Amino acid sequence: MNSSVAVEKPERRRLTEPGRKTRDRIIEAAAELMFHHGVGGTSIPDIQAAARVSASQIYHYFGDKRGLVLAVVNFQTDTKLDQQRPLLDNLDSIDALRAWCAKAADRQDAMGCAGGCEIGSLASELAETDPSARTDLSASFDRWELPIRSGLARMQARGELSERADVVSLATALLAAIQGGMLLSQVRRSSTAYRHAVSAVIDHIETYVVR
Amino acid sequence: MNSSVAVEKPERRRLTEPGRKTRDRIIEAAAELMFHHGVGGTSIPDIQAAARVSASQIYHYFGDKRGLVLAVVNFQTDTKLDQQRPLLDNLDSIDALRAWCAKAADRQDAMGCAGGCEIGSLASELAETDPSARTDLSASFDRWELPIRSGLARMQARGELSERADVVSLATALLAAIQGGMLLSQVRRSSTAYRHAVSAVIDHIETYVVR
Repeated sequence: MNSSVAVEKPERRRLTEPGRKTRDRIIEAAAELMFHHGVGGTSIPDIQAAARVSASQIYHYFGDKRGLVLAVVNFQTDTKLDQQRPLLDNLDSIDALRAWCAKAADRQDAMGCAGGCEIGSLASELAETDPSARTDLSASFDRWELPIRSGLARMQARGELSERADVVSLATALLAAIQGGMLLSQVRRSSTAYRHAVSAVIDHIETYVVR
Repeated sequence: MNSSVAVEKPERRRLTEPGRKTRDRIIEAAAELMFHHGVGGTSIPDIQAAARVSASQIYHYFGDKRGLVLAVVNFQTDTKLDQQRPLLDNLDSIDALRAWCAKAADRQDAMGCAGGCEIGSLASELAETDPSARTDLSASFDRWELPIRSGLARMQARGELSERADVVSLATALLAAIQGGMLLSQVRRSSTAYRHAVSAVIDHIETYVVR
């Protein structure tokens, strides 16, 4: 389930430092454009212009647009997870879960709730049209869900969460609340939906806390 | 907040019966194409071919592609809500909430969890690129959330749900779980995420039931 497999092709390991920088610049430019205009609304010429590269450089590093899309999926996942550390590695208390979700809500407010989730938007756009991207996005969601599950499992192992709690299902429920809440907040331009969505699930998780 | 406003323009009321049928055929063809290929992946010539109409007929009825997109948003919302009646009008017990969500999970399984949510997919694609569509999609989600909220409010009015329950926030949380759950299920090609997501929120609502 390591989604970096798709990026860690031999070509990449053989890249020179300037080659790696060019490749990264293309991915970053493509990620930015695709976030704002969707994958379908982003053309290779758009990416060429934004990254100041030729079409042949893009094809050299990624094969085709689909290859570049896969790199963007993995780049966005890495970036999103990195942004959320160290909170993400310490989700082993109700307070930590609430603080993590509150921080994401504040980030949404700071952007006027525009943009939505980088991963969720890619998932919605690509799930039916690009099977490789769907597989990688499934792995992205797994990577995101894992630290939630691990935190809950550590609480359970320490006896702070009841044995009755199904930590796998609760972690999925929280990730779904995050995704659905972000979509509603994006459309409504208000983080209220996100806040209510994650609160309900964390309140539910709290019912399993052993007092 | 009546999302039908956008469709109920004077032109429509003046339509002859054949005119109305042509207009409906265009909307249905566009909705089907946009569901499978996205709005960005659906061209006016695609819609012409599928609906067997000329470009000028499309422009006559909808002004431009954005006008047609608004009609599709409202058509998909009407269709989705109609499909779910009478369950949607009777969400005033925990069993009814569970039965309604289970039916949606079964529908996802029947489609191999492909396709995702018609409204959610449009929302994700259009929220940043089409402000009118975003407004109409916000109204669509309101129309979907309302029967959940009404059911919970009726339970509360009958004394079956604690006064402490914030039915507005709980209804939003359930809609978010549905949306996020459907997206995860679509990407994972398994309804498990959807089932876990809605279960967690309904379990949480159940904690407010007065025994």
